[in-house]
Amino acid sequence: MAKYMTLLWGSGSPPCWRVMIALEEKNLQGYNQKLLSLEKLEHKSKELLAINPRGQLPTFKHGDNVLSESYAVCFYLESQFKSQGTKLIPDGPAEQALMYQRMFEGLTFYEKLSKYYYSSEPQTLKRNKEALVTELRLWEGYLQKLGSGSYLAGPSFTLADVVVFPTVGTVFRFGLSPERYPKLGEYHNLLKERPSIRASWPPHWLESPKGLDTLKDI
Amino acid sequence: MAKYMTLLWGSGSPPCWRVMIALEEKNLQGYNQKLLSLEKLEHKSKELLAINPRGQLPTFKHGDNVLSESYAVCFYLESQFKSQGTKLIPDGPAEQALMYQRMFEGLTFYEKLSKYYYSSEPQTLKRNKEALVTELRLWEGYLQKLGSGSYLAGPSFTLADVVVFPTVGTVFRFGLSPERYPKLGEYHNLLKERPSIRASWPPHWLESPKGLDTLKDI
Repeated sequence: MAKYMTLLWGSGSPPCWRVMIALEEKNLQGYNQKLLSLEKLEHKSKELLAINPRGQLPTFKHGDNVLSESYAVCFYLESQFKSQGTKLIPDGPAEQALMYQRMFEGLTFYEKLSKYYYSSEPQTLKRNKEALVTELRLWEGYLQKLGSGSYLAGPSFTLADVVVFPTVGTVFRFGLSPERYPKLGEYHNLLKERPSIRASWPPHWLESPKGLDTLKDI
Repeated sequence: MAKYMTLLWGSGSPPCWRVMIALEEKNLQGYNQKLLSLEKLEHKSKELLAINPRGQLPTFKHGDNVLSESYAVCFYLESQFKSQGTKLIPDGPAEQALMYQRMFEGLTFYEKLSKYYYSSEPQTLKRNKEALVTELRLWEGYLQKLGSGSYLAGPSFTLADVVVFPTVGTVFRFGLSPERYPKLGEYHNLLKERPSIRASWPPHWLESPKGLDTLKDI
């Protein structure tokens, strides 16, 4: 099946990483893939714009179906390959409610990180830093409440982890202190050894394992 | 079942409207509800912050499960009440792929509308206006390609319509020209007569049927 799939992606892009984790979890290794350079604006090439007018990565094809929204790809894969690989949507209503809730809060988490990362003007930087700290504390609290060794929606690894982990991986890559955010640190340590996540770790992070210390002091 | 459900909402808020449409489509009328005033900041009250630390509307409770992300509520309701009311996720892979894709593009559509609406500084306003026009043309093109009388993901009404219609309703409320965007206009006319949408129409729009003409010239 995976040979009818193609993924166009960029290294270190959290949305691309989400899709790659989902593909691994659903045992869909062996798909066609093309690593594009975001620096060289290869995601704005004519070839890509022809199938994806927004010029975004990831762009994913399964037969004739083209999807370029990372959450859409994750939902689609879980739905099309329900009984293959990891079951990513739990059955219990409470765990399911928590999973959906955290998935969509995950968009806010990623947005707050991006806003801080791209702010230049000092006043904006200060405001966006505070917003990111508030956000990090919320997630720290969520994990604290669930207890040690838990995933984001409870005892099983779910779509919430698929979509939120890349953001968590990125904040630690940028120097977030696991002493100041111990539950996030523990969650990061638990998940970074998971086969799907190891297999999809951004290649340029492997080449230079230390990122900028942008988040060291927050 | 619906008596164990409570919705806290604000009139005219597209995220709240999504949830109300989903509840109607799943035949979950009769839920408890409380209309809060966004102007009076009732969504930042202690009562609400206790169950929803982000202080957002909608806030939805089903038994002990609390959800405050509109997309999360829609997915949760479809999953918990799969065989009740309208089936909101189609079976066919192509229609499903398109549904997920449009759902998540719908977040960008809503974001571009909000950014334009809240921009004040002339340079930002100009840039955000252009971005909204580009976005509107994309959706106009999507509908054109699907042909007359189609929903966003094909021949059936799906979750894509549940989450995107409130944005479409809002752009026409703000004076968008159906002459300049005929396919969006046709889609708006088709859906505004749908029972779930009529039943959940924002009450203050009924009181004063004409909104500001903010989008008249775009």
